[in-house]
Amino acid sequence: MTYTELTQRIESAGHGLCVGIDPDPSKLPFGVGGLAEFCIGVVDATAHLAVAYKPNFAFFEALGRPGWDALDAVTQHLHGLSSKPFLIADAKRGDIGNTASRYAQGILDVMGYDAITVAPYMGRDSVEPFMRQGKWVVGLGLTSNPGADDLQQLALSDGRRVYEAVADCYLDWGTPQNLMVVAGATRPEALSALRDRMPETFFLVPGVGAQGGSAEEVVRHGAFRGTPGMGLLVNASRSIMYASSGTDWQRRAAESAESLAAEIRSAYRA
Amino acid sequence: MTYTELTQRIESAGHGLCVGIDPDPSKLPFGVGGLAEFCIGVVDATAHLAVAYKPNFAFFEALGRPGWDALDAVTQHLHGLSSKPFLIADAKRGDIGNTASRYAQGILDVMGYDAITVAPYMGRDSVEPFMRQGKWVVGLGLTSNPGADDLQQLALSDGRRVYEAVADCYLDWGTPQNLMVVAGATRPEALSALRDRMPETFFLVPGVGAQGGSAEEVVRHGAFRGTPGMGLLVNASRSIMYASSGTDWQRRAAESAESLAAEIRSAYRA
Repeated sequence: MTYTELTQRIESAGHGLCVGIDPDPSKLPFGVGGLAEFCIGVVDATAHLAVAYKPNFAFFEALGRPGWDALDAVTQHLHGLSSKPFLIADAKRGDIGNTASRYAQGILDVMGYDAITVAPYMGRDSVEPFMRQGKWVVGLGLTSNPGADDLQQLALSDGRRVYEAVADCYLDWGTPQNLMVVAGATRPEALSALRDRMPETFFLVPGVGAQGGSAEEVVRHGAFRGTPGMGLLVNASRSIMYASSGTDWQRRAAESAESLAAEIRSAYRA
Repeated sequence: MTYTELTQRIESAGHGLCVGIDPDPSKLPFGVGGLAEFCIGVVDATAHLAVAYKPNFAFFEALGRPGWDALDAVTQHLHGLSSKPFLIADAKRGDIGNTASRYAQGILDVMGYDAITVAPYMGRDSVEPFMRQGKWVVGLGLTSNPGADDLQQLALSDGRRVYEAVADCYLDWGTPQNLMVVAGATRPEALSALRDRMPETFFLVPGVGAQGGSAEEVVRHGAFRGTPGMGLLVNASRSIMYASSGTDWQRRAAESAESLAAEIRSAYRA
């Protein structure tokens, strides 16, 4: 999907809601038989709203082959949606060029995802192979977990933090048309600093909902400065998928997604 | 596999040869029908020598489901070897705790690998979930690719390089009994500095052979200072797997592995 197409989807929706698909087999709602059925049910309940979907590969790989089969089924179902959402493989891959090309082939070409999350530690040649026509790299920038401070916040001798140096690398390696950055919702000031540094780069923002970030703060600190309502894909996973463990799980997932979408829309208007 | 068991394997072999399994479907030797057959053939040709095997998950994932099937077949075959090698999943995973636990479950528990390569960028809670009884984290430290300089070599305000800060994190997060570090063969001086910093930590050293590192230099700079012949798993992939594209591919793979093992052994004696 191109930058223009993605922008149009977000404009038309009035939000950039991304539904994360993190299926936990120990938390299937009442009456649901399997992982794929659960994920597909969540997708169907939210497809009228979601601009993007982000299956978290770990939750599928955890199960070995049955998990791969479920991921395959969910991926096929996502490709069949008439809403044609932006599809992000949350796989956090990162390896040297030769190997990175293989991950790109598997996830972007064979599985057909629009984007893949990528770790920056190995440098330019571990990220560039994912940049393909109409495809996107989603580089880890500033994450929302406690361990983010261990490396990302270290001070460099030139005055930058490590995550700022990573941001500068991304600006050098890619363009706003083929590279977006993971920027956690739980650190609004840092999100704001990152936006100043990368004025035209899309942010994929996890950490809203279950992890405690607020959609209003994310929009205020993270949206494009000059283009209200643009520049963000806001991800929620658990708060949507596990909105209810009863037989009303699909309705409740839809309500949770609607509520977050409304919150983002109203923050954009504020 | 415990530290003591791994140490005994290496002592008894006189080297720590790790055979990397990076199967390229466009480079199958003459007469070989498929990816799994090729990998299993390389494994069988080298099983009398290899202390460890390291399947590179990207090369399998590149093919989608047929690749996962091949990885599964190769993994089963490795588990069946009477030599009981140390099995490293070269998967470069790294994600927040919740998700990292899933990758650990899939690769260490379900697939039964002894170790997994892990990226450090997200910090402690992205690495700790991989530390399990009898299992190993193989953390990216100093890699052998051109892009390694982009982040790993940046200078911090406290005088350390980023890769040194990462090494210090690893010393804090794990122990030499459950954490080893990827340290590339192509930078002998840096390998030496890393050894000084981590005197008792095993290094997994890629970059010997096809990438141009020398086994003699790796041993001289990277082995434990006080215990000659210990502290290294030296990986070679392409130079063994693709030693010949003719019908003699298994014999040539064995010869290439034997030659590298001999080189390491003689470096240890020097």
